[in-house]
Amino acid sequence: MTSFPMPTMPAPPVAVVGLGQLGGSLAAALAAAGREVSGWDVDPAAREAAAARGVTITQEMGGVVVLAVPLPAMNTALEGLTIDPDATITDLGSVKRPVVASLEAAFGGRFVGGHPMCGSERSGHTAVDPTLFTGARWALCLEPGTELPRWLRVAEVALAVGAEVVPVTAVEHDDAVAAISHVPHLLAAALAAAAATSPLALALAAGSFRDGTRVIGSDPAFVTAMVEGNAVPTAEALARVQAQLDRPWPELIAAGHAVATRQPAMRTLRVPLERAALLAVGRAGGAITRRLAAFVEGWVPER
Amino acid sequence: MTSFPMPTMPAPPVAVVGLGQLGGSLAAALAAAGREVSGWDVDPAAREAAAARGVTITQEMGGVVVLAVPLPAMNTALEGLTIDPDATITDLGSVKRPVVASLEAAFGGRFVGGHPMCGSERSGHTAVDPTLFTGARWALCLEPGTELPRWLRVAEVALAVGAEVVPVTAVEHDDAVAAISHVPHLLAAALAAAAATSPLALALAAGSFRDGTRVIGSDPAFVTAMVEGNAVPTAEALARVQAQLDRPWPELIAAGHAVATRQPAMRTLRVPLERAALLAVGRAGGAITRRLAAFVEGWVPER
Repeated sequence: MTSFPMPTMPAPPVAVVGLGQLGGSLAAALAAAGREVSGWDVDPAAREAAAARGVTITQEMGGVVVLAVPLPAMNTALEGLTIDPDATITDLGSVKRPVVASLEAAFGGRFVGGHPMCGSERSGHTAVDPTLFTGARWALCLEPGTELPRWLRVAEVALAVGAEVVPVTAVEHDDAVAAISHVPHLLAAALAAAAATSPLALALAAGSFRDGTRVIGSDPAFVTAMVEGNAVPTAEALARVQAQLDRPWPELIAAGHAVATRQPAMRTLRVPLERAALLAVGRAGGAITRRLAAFVEGWVPER
Repeated sequence: MTSFPMPTMPAPPVAVVGLGQLGGSLAAALAAAGREVSGWDVDPAAREAAAARGVTITQEMGGVVVLAVPLPAMNTALEGLTIDPDATITDLGSVKRPVVASLEAAFGGRFVGGHPMCGSERSGHTAVDPTLFTGARWALCLEPGTELPRWLRVAEVALAVGAEVVPVTAVEHDDAVAAISHVPHLLAAALAAAAATSPLALALAAGSFRDGTRVIGSDPAFVTAMVEGNAVPTAEALARVQAQLDRPWPELIAAGHAVATRQPAMRTLRVPLERAALLAVGRAGGAITRRLAAFVEGWVPER
């Protein structure tokens, strides 16, 4: 598959709407990397904190516009802001199907859904950390209508802050995060709520319990919006976990251990700038690590 | 309730059978604290590592004899060793009902079942850490037949290495650890096994998943012995977690969050040296922190 060399474009400016933990960290990381970055937040304290980190505060936005707001605010976050009609729009929301549906309706192929797999149980601008994305996987939706050059522009923003880009469809993403994030949140809540009837149990709680329940320190409104925004995949993934619990315990424990301890070797590869080839990397469990002129570079686990 | 002052006894020697992560750490911590401590392990490498930390290697044991061996080895661990007929015997096993039943049959009121709530997914003498018990809760069984002076002697060993002692019955202990340790191990295994069908899901796995599944790095044989040794309480605790999962998600998430974030104030108290009073501390979610002449001191959470 031959590709003609193309010059890479100069890095476009980035504008971040919502300067809480994720958005504030992204803006701070880009500013620290010398990129042109602006931002806006309805909270003056968040704006001030971002300005102190080198972010230009403005309501006029272009280039790559990043929606870093909670899921319920996604459809209204740009109200009152002036957005360049050629801007590429992306988001950082933890559920992709509903977000892609409504924002593709508004922006067509200019919208690229995204979800960096990082953040902690803390939130808000006081939890900003410019290194938050270093080494994180950043899922980026490549829908049939997504304009590939815009997808690459957003991918470059993710790569610029140290993340690895996982090409996905919104459907694939939501099924995956149901299994690895939304169900764990529900299990942690159920574990804590069930143990809470015994003060002795809570007093004895040690490593395995604290690890398994740490995530329920997260804001309950945020977690509720996340699981309810991904209700069907989450219910399906929960049913798969419950089916596992019916296995004989020794078999179940051995199966879980095998998953936890496997460390597949990684193989680097070059990927042509095509939707099918990029999505195949994500499906194989791989990620894109570098943008080159006519292709991207990444890795996939060995079979 | 008046108690006559009693002189505290000189600290008895401690002998540790099994010098892996838990036993080796206990022996090392006692040696570091200047206590007389001996030990034995079937593995010469474990014996050598303990000797290097100041532990006397011997097969003749008295004072407080600590069985720090895996559950399946508990009944045979003293074979070939010479044990003082007046020794106090204790153990560090993660399940108490079967251990107390068989070792009370062998040693009567001289046996005190114990379980320090610490240790990591690592094991063996290379995982020894003399600070392992600092701040940990150490459950100590006060059965109807347990001789209280021997219970106090074992409690002093736990306090000497920085742990807090939680007085329990074997039944209370096993119900509590089913909820906070054994069920979390099963849920983590089920979560990992269910997610493993999707390379994409594993590649996206971030904080909530890794935390929720970290414990399945533990030796599967160890985990299997633990849950099978506590099968009925574990099955009951699992059923309680599954019942929680039937609640509406927003309600479940709010309930879990309330448990995770509550930080009850603690009230210190003096506890007379009586079984009922000591067990009441454990049931209230409290712990014993200090041995005094005629009583112990501890704390319980405020209601």
